Amino acid sequence: MIDVQNQKDSRNIPIQKVGVKDVEIPLKIERKQNNELEVVYAKAKMSVNLEPCYKGTHMSRFIEILNEYRHESIYCNDIEKILFAMKKKLEAKSAYLKFSFKYFIKKQAPKSKLESLMCYDCAFEAQVDDNDDYKFYLMAKVPITTLCPCSKEISKYGAHNQRALLSLKIGYDKNSHIWLEDLIDMAQSCASSEIYPLLKREDEKFVTEHAYQNPKFVEDVIRDVVDIFEKNEIINYYEVEIEAFESIHNHNAWAYQKSQK
Amino acid sequence: MIDVQNQKDSRNIPIQKVGVKDVEIPLKIERKQNNELEVVYAKAKMSVNLEPCYKGTHMSRFIEILNEYRHESIYCNDIEKILFAMKKKLEAKSAYLKFSFKYFIKKQAPKSKLESLMCYDCAFEAQVDDNDDYKFYLMAKVPITTLCPCSKEISKYGAHNQRALLSLKIGYDKNSHIWLEDLIDMAQSCASSEIYPLLKREDEKFVTEHAYQNPKFVEDVIRDVVDIFEKNEIINYYEVEIEAFESIHNHNAWAYQKSQK
Amino acid sequence: MIDVQNQKDSRNIPIQKVGVKDVEIPLKIERKQNNELEVVYAKAKMSVNLEPCYKGTHMSRFIEILNEYRHESIYCNDIEKILFAMKKKLEAKSAYLKFSFKYFIKKQAPKSKLESLMCYDCAFEAQVDDNDDYKFYLMAKVPITTLCPCSKEISKYGAHNQRALLSLKIGYDKNSHIWLEDLIDMAQSCASSEIYPLLKREDEKFVTEHAYQNPKFVEDVIRDVVDIFEKNEIINYYEVEIEAFESIHNHNAWAYQKSQK
Amino acid sequence: MIDVQNQKDSRNIPIQKVGVKDVEIPLKIERKQNNELEVVYAKAKMSVNLEPCYKGTHMSRFIEILNEYRHESIYCNDIEKILFAMKKKLEAKSAYLKFSFKYFIKKQAPKSKLESLMCYDCAFEAQVDDNDDYKFYLMAKVPITTLCPCSKEISKYGAHNQRALLSLKIGYDKNSHIWLEDLIDMAQSCASSEIYPLLKREDEKFVTEHAYQNPKFVEDVIRDVVDIFEKNEIINYYEVEIEAFESIHNHNAWAYQKSQK
Repeated sequence: MIDVQNQKDSRNIPIQKVGVKDVEIPLKIERKQNNELEVVYAKAKMSVNLEPCYKGTHMSRFIEILNEYRHESIYCNDIEKILFAMKKKLEAKSAYLKFSFKYFIKKQAPKSKLESLMCYDCAFEAQVDDNDDYKFYLMAKVPITTLCPCSKEISKYGAHNQRALLSLKIGYDKNSHIWLEDLIDMAQSCASSEIYPLLKREDEKFVTEHAYQNPKFVEDVIRDVVDIFEKNEIINYYEVEIEAFESIHNHNAWAYQKSQK
Repeated sequence: MIDVQNQKDSRNIPIQKVGVKDVEIPLKIERKQNNELEVVYAKAKMSVNLEPCYKGTHMSRFIEILNEYRHESIYCNDIEKILFAMKKKLEAKSAYLKFSFKYFIKKQAPKSKLESLMCYDCAFEAQVDDNDDYKFYLMAKVPITTLCPCSKEISKYGAHNQRALLSLKIGYDKNSHIWLEDLIDMAQSCASSEIYPLLKREDEKFVTEHAYQNPKFVEDVIRDVVDIFEKNEIINYYEVEIEAFESIHNHNAWAYQKSQK
Repeated sequence: MIDVQNQKDSRNIPIQKVGVKDVEIPLKIERKQNNELEVVYAKAKMSVNLEPCYKGTHMSRFIEILNEYRHESIYCNDIEKILFAMKKKLEAKSAYLKFSFKYFIKKQAPKSKLESLMCYDCAFEAQVDDNDDYKFYLMAKVPITTLCPCSKEISKYGAHNQRALLSLKIGYDKNSHIWLEDLIDMAQSCASSEIYPLLKREDEKFVTEHAYQNPKFVEDVIRDVVDIFEKNEIINYYEVEIEAFESIHNHNAWAYQKSQK
Repeated sequence: MIDVQNQKDSRNIPIQKVGVKDVEIPLKIERKQNNELEVVYAKAKMSVNLEPCYKGTHMSRFIEILNEYRHESIYCNDIEKILFAMKKKLEAKSAYLKFSFKYFIKKQAPKSKLESLMCYDCAFEAQVDDNDDYKFYLMAKVPITTLCPCSKEISKYGAHNQRALLSLKIGYDKNSHIWLEDLIDMAQSCASSEIYPLLKREDEKFVTEHAYQNPKFVEDVIRDVVDIFEKNEIINYYEVEIEAFESIHNHNAWAYQKSQK
């Protein structure tokens, strides 16, 4: 059968990224706490560059590579192998992928110590360029509580507070390792209060009072995260975004910071 | 050209609803405050029944009907005309439609009295059945603040509060009329606090203290709405749903009630 | 600490459903092919009724029940136990739950026979009423290809085709069992062509020609599904919806059928 | 009342962007065809930088600025005024905004010449930096049909085709002007076939055959767009992304290109 993708293209236009998106796949990642690989529900986005001379890339090969690697760990440097497999199998010079997945972590209520599972939207993003230079990024979206310092200050009692979403993306030294569990902890330490899946009354009292004692604007949260990231010697790149679903408005407050250290 | 849709079908299976969905269209509706028709961004969902003998319906006719009626008011009894046009043009016995749209209402901050626009997701849903019986439903999704009575009661200070979404659907006597503005007011009167697009500091103080003085579970909100709907003599059908985006959890509290009076 | 939820309410309004929504949780379900329980990423929606005399329900107990049952199978009659646990722990007369989850099934390409994973959005919905009557519903959303019979008929060559989503919900006799795998097969058998995660060229040729030889309107697909459901002696309730993301329009064609046999 | 936002912050961390998001607002833009300003449903995202010395920005001022400018045109250079108003009112050095909106354009069926409205997701994005340098970007998401060249080539009859979304973002010389209507036309000219809201049978025959005669991979579409943008002397920056909702898969094919000329 004729290989249409392999035909010559006369437009002389190279393409930076071409591939597949929203491929649903169960992947395996290593947890901080034990050595077993955990199966996570993931969506894959994968691409390679396309030389000007070829009409198209071979999309089915991305799926074949996923099938090959889905039984192995995909954390950090493990992904380098996948990217090189993509370059080879698709005869490309650069390769890119992003695995977005649902990650459950056990979380203890602050007072009752009852344990339950909290789910975080996490992602690994990585690329290998023309010079075989490998870059890996760790991403997590962490729901937190923010309590408004202005509202607290000017009101006789109470203070508006709300769920907010803190989105983190970090790059770090290849020879180091940062666990999702630790990245999520960094995020939670910057909140007015952490968010929990299960709270009994004694816990609810604690988080309510704790948030009231720790009022934070989105500006405060982002500065506290930036402060942690700047002081961390392993992290060499970061993006932080926070979006607070204001309880008194129908729009959101947000802040964003990006830095290549 | 052959009319494939008009061909005979041998399976002898009538279809209850067949039509189009997610048709984006600017529609015109009447406001409470003035007589001018307001253009709203809408999505239309339209269907008719299909007799067992026909292979298919003629989808393009739904779009032609929309084009015909998009310059006229579509409020309440106006829609009856559209449904009868659908029955006629598509040679059907019953017809259904839903127009979901974005509706802006001016809202004054409680203290500064500054005016701004608040947007609500609203909808009109209607149907005509085999007996030409017409039913019309008015729907609105109203964002509000809820402040937790338990959190307030057990904590030394503060109380968790959050944005919540109150979704209302009502049916009422054909010879009456209920304005979206009034339905939305009913919803807002049941909240711990209304939500505003623009609040200066004096307003923020007011809404913070007001919410703290009016703690409400989702159960309280739904009961207050039900109470209003039950006492309203025009309303003969209602569905109420509330979903609170809990500031201390990553899941939502919700409650639902439905009644044919 | 005072139990605010347990306080008396004077409005005398019972609530039909109150509970939690969008609780993310890993659940375990039985596969058709082997006896091992498969972990799936799920979202839980759970509610009970609330007697008029109580101010509120105890939301944290839903999470405790989930934690208790998340290690056991949740298929079909297993859920009855969970619903009775909800009734007991929350002192309620009726209970409702819906588990929506991502379900992977191995799928073989039609010609190359290469195997890959396809993901389906599935759900279990169930309730126990005042009389301890238990109802269970099986749900699946199945992506398929539809190829337009009219377009094929009137055009010299080609025919527009597109991805469509077929959503099924069935109720069946408590003493029987229907596997998700079989429900999904029923759906796929009604398409112009099944959809696959991995297709090599020989497979692509096959699905292209197969779809062209099996043109189907949304009306045809829904009738074929209804025909299967009507002839199935175990199924006693069904809802079918199909939405085709038309390749020539920016709106969708859809059809819907519901029946209590 | 105390101005908490104005308090000194000791962390010495400047913030790049802080502001509001998802503000729903009706805005006015100029159409190509006539001089009247058209009201569009929009969502605004606005931010300014924050000096290290201040604790917070004043979020309500963004809304006040929107209220002030929502009666005027917001096209291209009009936005410069808004950004400078933001810098002034919020005492900031840089300002950023994005208006995303629904834009209706009349579209004629190719043969019957029947006219109907097609809706596009469009956006204006703009910023002013520390040096008062102004940048403006025009964005549009254009649904099109793609028909697979490989599927056509290897199959005896038919070819899989699908709805695809072509997302364009361009920057251009401040002294020039590009209409959304023209940007959308550029996108549509690169498709296997344009997409229409209303097609009668003679039109459906035309678009089916036209698509079959113009098979395009996502690679072909993106190259054709890039070719147009490269040859356009006004455009000095572009990003192009295409995502095809494959009718034979449940994942999407995509391609991406970005260039600063």
